[in-house]
Amino acid sequence: MAVYTEVSDVELSRFIASYGLGELQSYKGIAEGVENTNYLVQTAKGPFILTLYEKRVARDDLPFFLGLMEHLAGNGVSCPTPLHDNHGNALSELCGRAAAIVTFLQGVSVSRPSIDQCEAVGRALAQLHLAGNDFALRRSNALGPAGWQPLFDDFASRADEVAEGLGRTIAEELSALQAAWPQYLPQGVIHADLFPDNAFFLGGKLSGVIDFYFACNDAFAYDVAICLNAWCFEQDFSFNAAKGRALLAAYDAVRPFSAAERAAMPTLARGAAMRFLLTRAHDWLHHDRDALVSPHNPIDYVHRLRFHKTVRSIADYGLT
Amino acid sequence: MAVYTEVSDVELSRFIASYGLGELQSYKGIAEGVENTNYLVQTAKGPFILTLYEKRVARDDLPFFLGLMEHLAGNGVSCPTPLHDNHGNALSELCGRAAAIVTFLQGVSVSRPSIDQCEAVGRALAQLHLAGNDFALRRSNALGPAGWQPLFDDFASRADEVAEGLGRTIAEELSALQAAWPQYLPQGVIHADLFPDNAFFLGGKLSGVIDFYFACNDAFAYDVAICLNAWCFEQDFSFNAAKGRALLAAYDAVRPFSAAERAAMPTLARGAAMRFLLTRAHDWLHHDRDALVSPHNPIDYVHRLRFHKTVRSIADYGLT
Repeated sequence: MAVYTEVSDVELSRFIASYGLGELQSYKGIAEGVENTNYLVQTAKGPFILTLYEKRVARDDLPFFLGLMEHLAGNGVSCPTPLHDNHGNALSELCGRAAAIVTFLQGVSVSRPSIDQCEAVGRALAQLHLAGNDFALRRSNALGPAGWQPLFDDFASRADEVAEGLGRTIAEELSALQAAWPQYLPQGVIHADLFPDNAFFLGGKLSGVIDFYFACNDAFAYDVAICLNAWCFEQDFSFNAAKGRALLAAYDAVRPFSAAERAAMPTLARGAAMRFLLTRAHDWLHHDRDALVSPHNPIDYVHRLRFHKTVRSIADYGLT
Repeated sequence: MAVYTEVSDVELSRFIASYGLGELQSYKGIAEGVENTNYLVQTAKGPFILTLYEKRVARDDLPFFLGLMEHLAGNGVSCPTPLHDNHGNALSELCGRAAAIVTFLQGVSVSRPSIDQCEAVGRALAQLHLAGNDFALRRSNALGPAGWQPLFDDFASRADEVAEGLGRTIAEELSALQAAWPQYLPQGVIHADLFPDNAFFLGGKLSGVIDFYFACNDAFAYDVAICLNAWCFEQDFSFNAAKGRALLAAYDAVRPFSAAERAAMPTLARGAAMRFLLTRAHDWLHHDRDALVSPHNPIDYVHRLRFHKTVRSIADYGLT
């Protein structure tokens, strides 16, 4: 959400020359992405996004992320594609940081998705899952079920500072999820963070998906469950079944759910709510109160969790 | 340097419609300007900059700033021009903030200006002074000599935390400047903050001047003195007389200095160094140590001040 690394005109001009992008016409540090420095760079060859990877992104993961974007873009997914420099490398270095230049996607992320937009994202997610199917690299899900207990342990003693009783709610839910978590669902590359701010729309159509820095190998249906949480709840925390139906049916039309996936959806949705509840509660408690940007309120996910616990089958999410 | 106010796609689409800019194609919060929120907004009609004025900018000053940009742009200065909405207003409101949309300028600001770039900025500054001459509104210089003592009083007791002896240096210099400050120099609208990051270059030429939020009525030659401080010192704090000569001669060729302006230049340059020393020392001492962005080091201006005190005439800055 900030420019952590300042790049000078001289350094950037030299850098883009190695990609054959011609003269540098303008560049602006942009407030996008969680922990990296991003510039919107206008060159003689058009606009591009320059990313400098700051220390919280593991350098070993970068070939996976960049390779995945290139693989998906090459397989019909509208997402940023890394450029290769004169030496053929997508991953380079600038100002002492690992750095990459990716294509710029037009479009606007929506703050209140419509039913049509939920349908579009369901379809796009299924296409992304199919397109990623033959990607060679692997990355495990650091924020999957095995990571939840350690994440909770880190702030368990302070959980009730967020809300009275939150510590017990999480502890009980973690036990329940551990017992119920499905083991043998179809797996592949998932986006794992496809929130509305990571999808662009233009002229009523989904124009692109961005921010693959949580992508990993995990159950496809878990990625769908993340989207149910991210796209289908209203501001008052009520679940919008019309949006759920649109998202699930559009997904199912491109990549049909197996019976096991359908059966597992309520548990997966609870797990997805738990994953975001944990990271948000963690960030909430570790947040510098003087910082300009407020963290997301973790309570949003307590409400979602409460809803998912009332769900008996995928039909309650709208899929018949 | 940050996005203080988040604008949603719905709000922004409605807003740009009132300017007849067609469909919103993309928008990115940009890390530009000191205390406002800025977005680079791509529309069907091209790119524009949206500024939301945060509380540190006095709303009463906005007609001056916006009117000035429009006046200057109409008189041949390459600077952002405010658009007018359907009601003919340049100043509007968005998300509870005063807001304006201005044209986007291509170009890149340089971190280490060349002699040619110093020449270009000297010429542009003189053109700006002439173009502003018949601008109707007035704004006094809140950071002019009368404002220095109160600014210093605000941190005088802590000045030596910045550097040993800084308090005494400033106190003595303020007395000297007060006694020597020239009263009857030609006045008009000055930029008052034309640092390298507020000038864009493209293809070796100066393509635009931005950030008029310190502009005010004051002595033209004082604006030149600010530029001498901002453009003509090297990283080791040495004055580069070739850059000084280029800047001053280019200015003088467009708007010739009077004898009084020439004579006053060493005092004006000392005053300009003092003005930036004071605000930087103030920000340095009031800076949140956990913030991501470090303030400028005020010591840079102690070095400049020391140099200016050795100067006997404008010839020492390179103008013969």
